[in-house]
Amino acid sequence: MNPSRRDFLGIIGGAAALPLAARVAQGSPLRLHVAGALPAGVQAQQGPVGGGKIGYAIVGLGRISMGQFMPGVKASAQRSRITALVSGHPDKAARVAAQYGVPRNAIYNYQNYEQIAHNPNVDAVYIALPNGMHAEYTIRAAQSGKHVLCEKPMANSVAECEQMIAACQKAERKLMIAYRCRLEPTNLRAVQLIRGGYVGTLEIIDTGFGFTIAPGEWRLNKKMAGGGPMVDVGIYSLQACRYLSGEEPVEVSANWSVIDRDGRFTEVEENLNWTMRFPSGVLTTCYTSYGANCGNTYRATGSKGWVELGPAFTYEGIRMRSEGQESVAIAQPETDRYPDQFSREADHFAECILGNHEPVTPGEEGLRDEKLIQAIYESCREGRPVKTAAAPF
Amino acid sequence: MNPSRRDFLGIIGGAAALPLAARVAQGSPLRLHVAGALPAGVQAQQGPVGGGKIGYAIVGLGRISMGQFMPGVKASAQRSRITALVSGHPDKAARVAAQYGVPRNAIYNYQNYEQIAHNPNVDAVYIALPNGMHAEYTIRAAQSGKHVLCEKPMANSVAECEQMIAACQKAERKLMIAYRCRLEPTNLRAVQLIRGGYVGTLEIIDTGFGFTIAPGEWRLNKKMAGGGPMVDVGIYSLQACRYLSGEEPVEVSANWSVIDRDGRFTEVEENLNWTMRFPSGVLTTCYTSYGANCGNTYRATGSKGWVELGPAFTYEGIRMRSEGQESVAIAQPETDRYPDQFSREADHFAECILGNHEPVTPGEEGLRDEKLIQAIYESCREGRPVKTAAAPF
Repeated sequence: MNPSRRDFLGIIGGAAALPLAARVAQGSPLRLHVAGALPAGVQAQQGPVGGGKIGYAIVGLGRISMGQFMPGVKASAQRSRITALVSGHPDKAARVAAQYGVPRNAIYNYQNYEQIAHNPNVDAVYIALPNGMHAEYTIRAAQSGKHVLCEKPMANSVAECEQMIAACQKAERKLMIAYRCRLEPTNLRAVQLIRGGYVGTLEIIDTGFGFTIAPGEWRLNKKMAGGGPMVDVGIYSLQACRYLSGEEPVEVSANWSVIDRDGRFTEVEENLNWTMRFPSGVLTTCYTSYGANCGNTYRATGSKGWVELGPAFTYEGIRMRSEGQESVAIAQPETDRYPDQFSREADHFAECILGNHEPVTPGEEGLRDEKLIQAIYESCREGRPVKTAAAPF
Repeated sequence: MNPSRRDFLGIIGGAAALPLAARVAQGSPLRLHVAGALPAGVQAQQGPVGGGKIGYAIVGLGRISMGQFMPGVKASAQRSRITALVSGHPDKAARVAAQYGVPRNAIYNYQNYEQIAHNPNVDAVYIALPNGMHAEYTIRAAQSGKHVLCEKPMANSVAECEQMIAACQKAERKLMIAYRCRLEPTNLRAVQLIRGGYVGTLEIIDTGFGFTIAPGEWRLNKKMAGGGPMVDVGIYSLQACRYLSGEEPVEVSANWSVIDRDGRFTEVEENLNWTMRFPSGVLTTCYTSYGANCGNTYRATGSKGWVELGPAFTYEGIRMRSEGQESVAIAQPETDRYPDQFSREADHFAECILGNHEPVTPGEEGLRDEKLIQAIYESCREGRPVKTAAAPF
């Protein structure tokens, strides 16, 4: 399925009169929540609408788990709690368990991971492992009867993404890819402004996300990461072009380069830029880097105005500037503060499990980005544009 | 000639010890003036270094002549004066002549244009006609023994550019293309910072320039304009990528689109985006539009910092933000105020004539951009990247 812009507008912009549940129940792969049509997790923060919390097993005690997701759940989640840990470091796991009130018998390792099947306090897993391990640990969780919230990028290949979706379908478990910005108020507001006609007809999107990476990170290892800055942070710009336009690109054209010959970039690209053409004629320019701190921003410009976010993709402090049609309200939502983006994410998935809704960003959404990422890399390798319209979504 | 980055650094960054005249005399097509090595016209503003002024005949009394160039010369030029007018509107010409103290017998039209040959007060012409007329009026001026300062874009084809260069060479007259930003202090400062290592190794440039054009403009007529926003304002981004990197692109890849079907874009593109690869690995993303007011900015990011200009290309108010190596001075120059960019331009060319120097942006520089613009259009038409490294500059 490859929804047209009209379909998308019907689902989002034009469907404002539909009750939330009806909209959430629609299975469009391009479904986006906008302010005024808040996702489940966001509502939950304003007060639980029913009993129960979802218990998460945290898989991988790295930077994003320890620094973001777990503090987020602890600080502000309404529907989520941390009930188990999965780690290869028993001492670290014991310390973290004590901090989060996780019982010692709910600490697992990568060998006995499937034992979570027997823990009734674990409803779902949060997978925050290196990208190359996402598929295996998603599939093993589904086979153990658990729902899966998996960090982005979904996996390192289209085949892996498809296997993850199939495993969750077979086990009748939900799968969500952790695209924070799809639940973040300022990004949602940008989508709402654009859908509401604030910028007139959308024409141009320019976006980038890059930073200087330290040597030795697993993200520089091709097998673990699947790619360089494109899969890690370029994916935010890729997502933004899709959610801002409400369309799927028909063609991508890309270049990559390595400039800093300091040993960091022997396996993955250092810099990558790409353009996309969309069916309506919207053109996008995108860039990403591990060698240059080129910020994280987008600017979407139409016939009658523009919306700019900078920073656009950070954990907090996301800020909008805009100029457009005054008839469209432009009140700026309060930006999430650290670590609320992660509790939103946890609670949204919890609400989906509790209410049997599909998440905003199911596995199919991660698969879609993976196909586009592979098309972008193909364009780099072959030195020619790659058509993407025919990709059977 | 296709200078390498090293050559360029030698000419600009590394040549700071050379006296100005020696640097100016070097014939590199990539020569750029940077703060601390000010072009001739800039020095002149600090006090004439010798006698004499250059008399300009203004060819075409349109927006840029009447609103920018002539007020600029009147307000602050030290080496330039307006001594003749060439116009198809006798009444308008008479009014303007009175305003600028141009004698009635120094008003010409497009038929008797060659009569400027007999006017000893005319040393040079300033050509501000629709792009499609640049070649003819440059060649006729050269054949009449006058130097030529011609607005950008130089012309509508590579052949026209070559004919203009040949005509000026044959007549032993100077030819300069009016690239304002190559003399503008904040842009020059950006170049100086980058050459000085402020951003470390340059990796990524992102730049755009677009606005919403009114119906009925000659710029929407293919024959008069030669193209759409690419040739009109995209050329600023093209220039910026070249002067910031100090390199020539080896490949361009581009897309165009028309979205607004309101009759404006029946002959020229509405939106165009393109990427360029440079020999060092620098990657650039660029966009331009006549349908969307996407601003005029660039951000050049390297391994250790970035320099951003926004607005970057306006007649006044150009502003820099930056973050980089503190060891490199970052004092911001005072931005030119309206209409000083034009008096700088006039005086720079005047000094080149008086001192027999080559201008910063001779005809060869306009030709170079025209070749790249044609490569960009070729990429749009053919849907593939176009190699540019082999272009025999």
